[in-house]
Amino acid sequence: MAATFDQKDITAVSNIRTLAADVVAKANSGHPGAPMGMAPVAHALFTRHLRFNSKNPKWINRDRFVLSNGHACALQYILLHLAGYEVSLEDLKQFRQIDSITPGHPENGVTPGIEVTTGPLGQGVSNAVGLAIAQAHMGAVFNKENFNLIDNYTYTFLGDGCLQEGVASEACSLAGHLKLANLIAVYDDNKITIDGDTAVSFTENVEARFKSYGWNVLHVEKGDDDLAAIEAAFVEAKKSKDAPTIINLKTTIGFGSLRAGGHDVHGAPLKKDDIIQLKKKFGFNPEENFEVSKDTLEVYHKAAEAGAKAEEEWKALFKSYSEKYPKEAAELERRIEGRLPEGWEKALPTYTTSDAAVGSRKLSETTISKLAEVLPELVGGSADLTGSNLTRWKEAEDFQHPSTGLGSYAGRYFRFGVREHGMTAICNGIAAYGGLIPFGATFLNFVSYAAGAVRLSALSHLQVLTVATHDSIGLGEDGPTHQPVETAAWLRAIPNLAFWRPADGNECSAAYLVSILSKHTPSVFALSRQNLPQLANSSIEKAAKGGYVVEEVENADVTLVSTGSEVTLCHQALDELKAKGIKARLVSLPCFEVFNSQPNDYKLSVLPSGAPVLSVEAYATFGWGTYSHDHFGLKAWGASGPYDKVYAKFDLTPAGIAKRAEKVVDFYKKRGQPVFSPLISALDDITE
Amino acid sequence: MAATFDQKDITAVSNIRTLAADVVAKANSGHPGAPMGMAPVAHALFTRHLRFNSKNPKWINRDRFVLSNGHACALQYILLHLAGYEVSLEDLKQFRQIDSITPGHPENGVTPGIEVTTGPLGQGVSNAVGLAIAQAHMGAVFNKENFNLIDNYTYTFLGDGCLQEGVASEACSLAGHLKLANLIAVYDDNKITIDGDTAVSFTENVEARFKSYGWNVLHVEKGDDDLAAIEAAFVEAKKSKDAPTIINLKTTIGFGSLRAGGHDVHGAPLKKDDIIQLKKKFGFNPEENFEVSKDTLEVYHKAAEAGAKAEEEWKALFKSYSEKYPKEAAELERRIEGRLPEGWEKALPTYTTSDAAVGSRKLSETTISKLAEVLPELVGGSADLTGSNLTRWKEAEDFQHPSTGLGSYAGRYFRFGVREHGMTAICNGIAAYGGLIPFGATFLNFVSYAAGAVRLSALSHLQVLTVATHDSIGLGEDGPTHQPVETAAWLRAIPNLAFWRPADGNECSAAYLVSILSKHTPSVFALSRQNLPQLANSSIEKAAKGGYVVEEVENADVTLVSTGSEVTLCHQALDELKAKGIKARLVSLPCFEVFNSQPNDYKLSVLPSGAPVLSVEAYATFGWGTYSHDHFGLKAWGASGPYDKVYAKFDLTPAGIAKRAEKVVDFYKKRGQPVFSPLISALDDITE
Repeated sequence: MAATFDQKDITAVSNIRTLAADVVAKANSGHPGAPMGMAPVAHALFTRHLRFNSKNPKWINRDRFVLSNGHACALQYILLHLAGYEVSLEDLKQFRQIDSITPGHPENGVTPGIEVTTGPLGQGVSNAVGLAIAQAHMGAVFNKENFNLIDNYTYTFLGDGCLQEGVASEACSLAGHLKLANLIAVYDDNKITIDGDTAVSFTENVEARFKSYGWNVLHVEKGDDDLAAIEAAFVEAKKSKDAPTIINLKTTIGFGSLRAGGHDVHGAPLKKDDIIQLKKKFGFNPEENFEVSKDTLEVYHKAAEAGAKAEEEWKALFKSYSEKYPKEAAELERRIEGRLPEGWEKALPTYTTSDAAVGSRKLSETTISKLAEVLPELVGGSADLTGSNLTRWKEAEDFQHPSTGLGSYAGRYFRFGVREHGMTAICNGIAAYGGLIPFGATFLNFVSYAAGAVRLSALSHLQVLTVATHDSIGLGEDGPTHQPVETAAWLRAIPNLAFWRPADGNECSAAYLVSILSKHTPSVFALSRQNLPQLANSSIEKAAKGGYVVEEVENADVTLVSTGSEVTLCHQALDELKAKGIKARLVSLPCFEVFNSQPNDYKLSVLPSGAPVLSVEAYATFGWGTYSHDHFGLKAWGASGPYDKVYAKFDLTPAGIAKRAEKVVDFYKKRGQPVFSPLISALDDITE
Repeated sequence: MAATFDQKDITAVSNIRTLAADVVAKANSGHPGAPMGMAPVAHALFTRHLRFNSKNPKWINRDRFVLSNGHACALQYILLHLAGYEVSLEDLKQFRQIDSITPGHPENGVTPGIEVTTGPLGQGVSNAVGLAIAQAHMGAVFNKENFNLIDNYTYTFLGDGCLQEGVASEACSLAGHLKLANLIAVYDDNKITIDGDTAVSFTENVEARFKSYGWNVLHVEKGDDDLAAIEAAFVEAKKSKDAPTIINLKTTIGFGSLRAGGHDVHGAPLKKDDIIQLKKKFGFNPEENFEVSKDTLEVYHKAAEAGAKAEEEWKALFKSYSEKYPKEAAELERRIEGRLPEGWEKALPTYTTSDAAVGSRKLSETTISKLAEVLPELVGGSADLTGSNLTRWKEAEDFQHPSTGLGSYAGRYFRFGVREHGMTAICNGIAAYGGLIPFGATFLNFVSYAAGAVRLSALSHLQVLTVATHDSIGLGEDGPTHQPVETAAWLRAIPNLAFWRPADGNECSAAYLVSILSKHTPSVFALSRQNLPQLANSSIEKAAKGGYVVEEVENADVTLVSTGSEVTLCHQALDELKAKGIKARLVSLPCFEVFNSQPNDYKLSVLPSGAPVLSVEAYATFGWGTYSHDHFGLKAWGASGPYDKVYAKFDLTPAGIAKRAEKVVDFYKKRGQPVFSPLISALDDITE
């Protein structure tokens, strides 16, 4: 592509600015400042560097572009429109309107050309690190001599807000460690945040910080109009062989506006007069809205043509690759399409009661080890708890820059460091790349540190797995600072997220089965440190329904419903209850989300009317009201001590459970009224 | 204090190491590595620099010590024991046992001398920033010429894990910006994390990073034994006038152990043989456990005496201060004791239906502005959303280093930057200091970013307020990336946290009333962007109960229960229902946590048996089962658009609510069975 710019480019840059003003003004909502400030760099990137085919936004070897300062999305939608994506001028006019494809912040799956969902600050740049990791890995696995099939760059724009967020610090430190030369970030250094001048809160030396992370740091002083300097910076960035690049781009927020350089242009539409003077100044018709000049169209048409040609060339390359390496080519196609290998699920271990009692984190280790053999797309690692999370399979190679001698980019095991939030945001990026199923691991309690990224996995429909061990007071001595109480409720309340808490080996295999099959849903596995015996009546098939009957009995007096390590305690309580003449059923409910999606008659067969239901779980009882009449759990925080003594302290023992079940039975008998299933709902049409 | 060290000091350092080995071995659980590595710096700090009176751990002008690498707490407990705090040798033997005062990680309120709860990595150092801010502020407010009443330092130890966490990056960047010279951090640079050598994930240049933040960076090469160099670093650190200091201390993890320098000494007890050789090497009796040498006792006795003397001197100083500045002295005493000024609550605004409909964020602004006048201990700010959160009162001065010209340390308004997690962890530190009630602010959706710190506010019983505006799909155009769905469920599931969602002005005042009175409970206020009319039947007194009846009716067919902005929608639905001949009651439930603590008869009067209860809230319905039979809310995510159209999209309108209420009424009428209050619980003895 040409590296020089002419008057048409200058017109196009101005045009992006007038469009940004129009888009935000029409919606009467949005952020014009950053789009107007970043118009030149966006133009240089989209017309000179970004490799894309707007007619096929899913081409695997496209460059990825991530707008980490997602509030500037008017800019991105305008660029997508100009570049020929299925984003029309009418779509731009529907900016921030109900059911439009141009929502208030970019959402993947909603707008063609949007790679990841951004807006929550710090996430996009962290996703970009994940996208770059994915490229490096896929390239290392599939590229052959003379066949650089996978060699795309990941570009990301970010502002002061992203840089202040801890998640970005975590991800960028790791990106430096991993020497991801395929990652190019542009920092919009406009000295303005919502609270005003960055002088009020953000005076660190960003360039020095990124140097300390091991990044290649470039600087463009005149980001408002110096297209040649911007272009030179991109060229320079691409020369980096063993470091990600950040370009510190000095810009004026709202460039062209009368209020340029101030914080009031950040998040509010320009006034009418201001837009008129802007258009006049830039040579556009002040009376016309959403004007796209012929010159602008021409420049972008050329860029789009070049992109389409690039994909044609790639297809030809892939064709010869297929001839020379048919097996690898077929495998790459399978991976890109997200098809699982035939019969992969046979690798899932099954268990009987004669198998040893082990912690479910150990069961997970066995499952991961088996799956790693049959699913080369499974990649992952731990936030510095490998030996506790048990996530590393024996033959795993670490994902590391080869110069470290610690692994290679073909490695599938990640050393995330103690960076839970960065880890999950990176996994979101890896999942968004395609061809990979990533997992991250930490203690369940510290999944909360990643909350900002976890909700985006779910909102973005990304298949990200989280291995969350030490899932309750059962972790014992580490104490309440490390014992989750509220975490399960939070994760269960997130739409499109499957929170699994398996009670034994078959349930653990079911959790992995459903999670690997669910291409658009993230999953969290809550796994015990302490040993759990294998249940007699569990099976992968039953547990894959999210809930099932472990022990059935006719004319039950009570149903106990439980999850994970407490299922066994309940099982033991059944004997105590039997001795007292109380007939109790036992239900295991490893995944609310999956159970909820079963047919009503199945759900009612598991939790029927006729007898009260008592839930038992070593968490806050919040949220159990949908599944049980009474709830036995933790009233407050856990405690530090050997795990069995911690359970005893809270009376979470077979005797403690039996005592409460008896109380519930007595209460409902005394009341003498019919007992209806807690599932019954007029609004959800769950009736008998 | 003497700055030279002799043989007794060397013995004491060795003794700390043998005790650390014994403490962890006795518990058969814990982390011996960091305590053994950091024994010299801990010794130098506690015997030469830390100002404390172990007989009065609450002395306001004591230096604060925060062990951010809280897993090393064996070290801290040993130091507290030696220094004469109420931590006995027997307590050390009960390390990590149920109900001991030496739990697995340090918890404030449990162990005398523990300032904040640490262990979750990155929190402690961020709390330390808050403690340093609090000192700087209290000093600026109360100190007078020749009366440096409040001039303590905050010291913190931290390891690689803390430095990898984003929350620490956020807080440390802000600490540099604020030029907190009263903050001295010691980085235990031992090159080991749980996953092994830091080379696998953490290769950034930490010293350069902290320089980029504006910190004073010092370096001690021989942290294992060079007490003089450590001492010199502390002396040098105290010379800093306008920057916090970090001392990069090179140590050997598990120094003295046969496994020193390896990651297997990080989190597992030393083997018996290892302990024997350790004691022999250091001149201790290998047969004796928990030996404390005479020399050790002597050194620490001296340090404790010096500390007691320091408080005596301070008391004398305070006495003359009281004579010269009686008003200020009385005010300082009031603040230290946490007594609220007489009649402060009269400042809370009250409303009638003739008052304008405004967003509850605006109501909150009015309340904060009134309270700021009468409660000088109220300090706070926003994570770069001041103009959106409406948290800054007119006369507020910013908390800034005076050299910036932007404010002073006497300022009470914080510019936290886009650092939600750091903000909340800093607020925890401010609250732990004493004499201050801090608040932080962001959008409700981004309170999740701070989840790691929010749970510690609650676990640590810290009075931290969070102003969480833009609390639902009512924020409109920003769309689903910014619209909380699961956040309320998460916050409601946290023990000892009051999540308030006021429906009008009186409820907003009630939320502030209860939160300011609750000295040991954090509160989150979920506040609307859109306007809310004032309810006819609300009052501060009623809402302060957490839930109350807004509209009563005899022989109701249904009760609607709701919160915040949806209460008004429900109120409008009552008319539609009335027109259909359906008698509906309306209940507002602004705070589950506070409502739960009311007497059973009151609760049952609000949500009685006899008619079904339908909840209405623009969130996931998860958790409503305790309060309602059927639940109307969001099935998944929000949408981007003008707020009224977003509400309409999800049918959350008076008509949509009425339609569902009618369906619920029909269902229960058809069933023809008695309807019991959803509050009824056999286990909680809530019966009629």
